[in-house]
Amino acid sequence: MLKDAGGESALSALSAFLEEDMHACNRAIVQRMQSPVPLIPQLGAHLVAAGGKRLRPLLTLASARLCGYEPAPDRQRHVGLAACVEFIHTATLLHDDVVDESTLRRGLASANAVFGNKASVLVGDFLFARSFQLMTADGSLRVMAILSAASATIAEGEVLQMATQNDLSTPIDRYLEVIHGKTAALFAAACRVGAVLTDRPIAEEEALDAFGTNLGMAFQLVDDALDYAADQQTLGKTVGDDMREGKITLPVLAAYDAATPEEKVFWERVIEQGEQTDADLPRALELIAKTDAIGVTIARAQTYADAAVEALSIFPESELRGLLERTVQYTVNRAR
Amino acid sequence: MLKDAGGESALSALSAFLEEDMHACNRAIVQRMQSPVPLIPQLGAHLVAAGGKRLRPLLTLASARLCGYEPAPDRQRHVGLAACVEFIHTATLLHDDVVDESTLRRGLASANAVFGNKASVLVGDFLFARSFQLMTADGSLRVMAILSAASATIAEGEVLQMATQNDLSTPIDRYLEVIHGKTAALFAAACRVGAVLTDRPIAEEEALDAFGTNLGMAFQLVDDALDYAADQQTLGKTVGDDMREGKITLPVLAAYDAATPEEKVFWERVIEQGEQTDADLPRALELIAKTDAIGVTIARAQTYADAAVEALSIFPESELRGLLERTVQYTVNRAR
Repeated sequence: MLKDAGGESALSALSAFLEEDMHACNRAIVQRMQSPVPLIPQLGAHLVAAGGKRLRPLLTLASARLCGYEPAPDRQRHVGLAACVEFIHTATLLHDDVVDESTLRRGLASANAVFGNKASVLVGDFLFARSFQLMTADGSLRVMAILSAASATIAEGEVLQMATQNDLSTPIDRYLEVIHGKTAALFAAACRVGAVLTDRPIAEEEALDAFGTNLGMAFQLVDDALDYAADQQTLGKTVGDDMREGKITLPVLAAYDAATPEEKVFWERVIEQGEQTDADLPRALELIAKTDAIGVTIARAQTYADAAVEALSIFPESELRGLLERTVQYTVNRAR
Repeated sequence: MLKDAGGESALSALSAFLEEDMHACNRAIVQRMQSPVPLIPQLGAHLVAAGGKRLRPLLTLASARLCGYEPAPDRQRHVGLAACVEFIHTATLLHDDVVDESTLRRGLASANAVFGNKASVLVGDFLFARSFQLMTADGSLRVMAILSAASATIAEGEVLQMATQNDLSTPIDRYLEVIHGKTAALFAAACRVGAVLTDRPIAEEEALDAFGTNLGMAFQLVDDALDYAADQQTLGKTVGDDMREGKITLPVLAAYDAATPEEKVFWERVIEQGEQTDADLPRALELIAKTDAIGVTIARAQTYADAAVEALSIFPESELRGLLERTVQYTVNRAR
């Protein structure tokens, strides 16, 4: 198992390594969020202010560089595509917060809480349309095929997640299918389009796809673990959100699987019937600790993380490859 | 002013003329709505069952034919693009019904009323992504540029509409900008992509764009008139919906403009403060009749309709051109 004590700073190191590209990407995001309709850049500014790690555009920029893409003042396709990936992600976040009725996002009031559900739905649609305009401007049919397929897969994942809600009999494979759709598919596409910009062998493109898929799976597993483990400040969202929504995640499935008959009754009332009191979150955290459900979840995340690192092995060793490997471990270490 | 007593049947005649293409388009719609996630085709079947006139895909098919596109078993780009246009339209309908909290659509329970808001948001996203996959499969960058720009304009129009809600000081030009965005832009794009399939002079493409824009403006003006005029069965939605939502449309702006001081107080309470009782709809209809606000709205629709017909004049006379002209007049006659 890969260990990295300095993992916490890996994402900042990767950002710093790609600093110029990231600045250009942030400029493109702000610029392409403009519209003659004032509410759109206003809501956009709220999202930009909320920050976020910009992990997905970083993956596009890093993948392009890893495949030898050499930017120049008139060669900035990687920047446009990184912005495009972030637009798709932001659109899905806006719609997720409406669907989940979330009031916090990254520790700040969510857009739907400030601007209302209507604005979040419609500005999400705008950003989604804008992302396709960015792809069209890029002009590669391969890129469009990858990103439009990923967009459809994300929506399918979200619908599937809705269908599993409140259902403790959801098989683990179904849960994995959900997180593949809602998270890993875009991570994979973000990496893959970086490779498409160059004419490297298809094996490198597939390796980056596998890297993104496995990193995305690890990332979402850890996110789901953090919902029962972290304090609100670390996570930037309300702890117990998933439980309140009756969302089926691995920590719950693992705790339920290892539960006594009396504990199963608790989970069924809380998750399936959705009948919850203030005392239920502490009780849930206690049962999750007792059954090591977080440990089970993190162990599975680590397996995906190891596969992500392994996928990079076809690239020669380099500072960038090392930074990507450390980013993978950072993703898992967030929950440790 | 163009008159056509048989206008009511014009849309059926156009559908019949393009019957084979329309069947192929309907098959493509059902087929591309498939997904391993069962709720997606289920919700899709609800939408297909609700019917609808499929006016936008008809426009794509008709425009392609008018420009001389000659289909063959292996030349069916017009069908794929017509389905694509309908997917974009359906996605926006699903999101509109969520935003407007509508319970009826075309006389049947709306998707959000049956499947819930979450499913409508997410399946809308899926259909939108699918439309971009259809465009990618078509492979024309010009088509993608037209349809992705139209998609962004639709979202802008919807956001602008939200910003004008409850605001009786909205200038008529702002209202026209809203309906251009939310309706006319997709009509124009639906027509334009039909022309792009052939290598006809750019003047024909621009003529079809102008035709679609003007037809879309007329169509939406009439729709807005019908909300204060038709009975529920004719319209397939609840009369007075727009008033209940405080939506700013031309019938209201015209009635308010011509109102006495006491009538202005009524409109301000109902539209701006949104305080409504059961007696208010009959009162509103009375004031709208008194000020001939429907007449004002239809007259403006007729001006756009005339411009739409005029735009077709660069094409030689033909049965298809005649059917399109009659379809324009049908659009206006719905409210007479």
